[in-house]
Amino acid sequence: MPDPEKMAAAVQAYVAAFEAGDPDAVASLYAADCTVEDPIGTPIHRGRETVRAFYAESMKTGAKLKLEGPIRLAGDYAVFPFSVNLHYEGSDKRIDVIDTFKFNDDNQVVEMRAFWGPSNMHGF
Amino acid sequence: MPDPEKMAAAVQAYVAAFEAGDPDAVASLYAADCTVEDPIGTPIHRGRETVRAFYAESMKTGAKLKLEGPIRLAGDYAVFPFSVNLHYEGSDKRIDVIDTFKFNDDNQVVEMRAFWGPSNMHGF
Repeated sequence: MPDPEKMAAAVQAYVAAFEAGDPDAVASLYAADCTVEDPIGTPIHRGRETVRAFYAESMKTGAKLKLEGPIRLAGDYAVFPFSVNLHYEGSDKRIDVIDTFKFNDDNQVVEMRAFWGPSNMHGF
Repeated sequence: MPDPEKMAAAVQAYVAAFEAGDPDAVASLYAADCTVEDPIGTPIHRGRETVRAFYAESMKTGAKLKLEGPIRLAGDYAVFPFSVNLHYEGSDKRIDVIDTFKFNDDNQVVEMRAFWGPSNMHGF
């Protein structure tokens, strides 16, 4: 089983990586055979390199993440509510998201799913 | 696909059913062939009748639910952060939880997963 403290630390590192605009730091949290579905219902990104490219593209928007409540740690999952905060075209924009991170025994993220939809987008 | 407004209404009805201590009201939100895993890693309750009994037992604690942020609506999922609030043995207790509700095309919950663990329990 993964270590709850290391799962929580990975979530904090994820937020910090966005603050720094560092896709390598995000990719390093993932297992080589990871999957990312963001948002739910869109095609799944498979493998650390593909996932790194996805984050590099996302970070071009300047998006910053803010935790909006405690991280829930359950079995091999860390689940957390947060906001994605953007500023462009002269206005602040926000998306309310909940991510589920599933970890392997090496405390790497093997599956990420991001839950958000049109009703969670504000200022667009 | 389920209707986002009906998914959000089901979450509100879920909270209200706990307020009323009404396990039938909760069970009515579920599909006949539903599954409930609460918390993650424990045996799965299968079918509406089994799930009803599970909620009837849970409600004996007097637990009330409070939404702690916006409901995320993504595809056929409603995902929401909330607290479970209890009072017994002379003190207030709280558990921070995130539930994922997956819906069928009839806007019934077919799969519920509750994410919380020891680090989310306060006052116990």
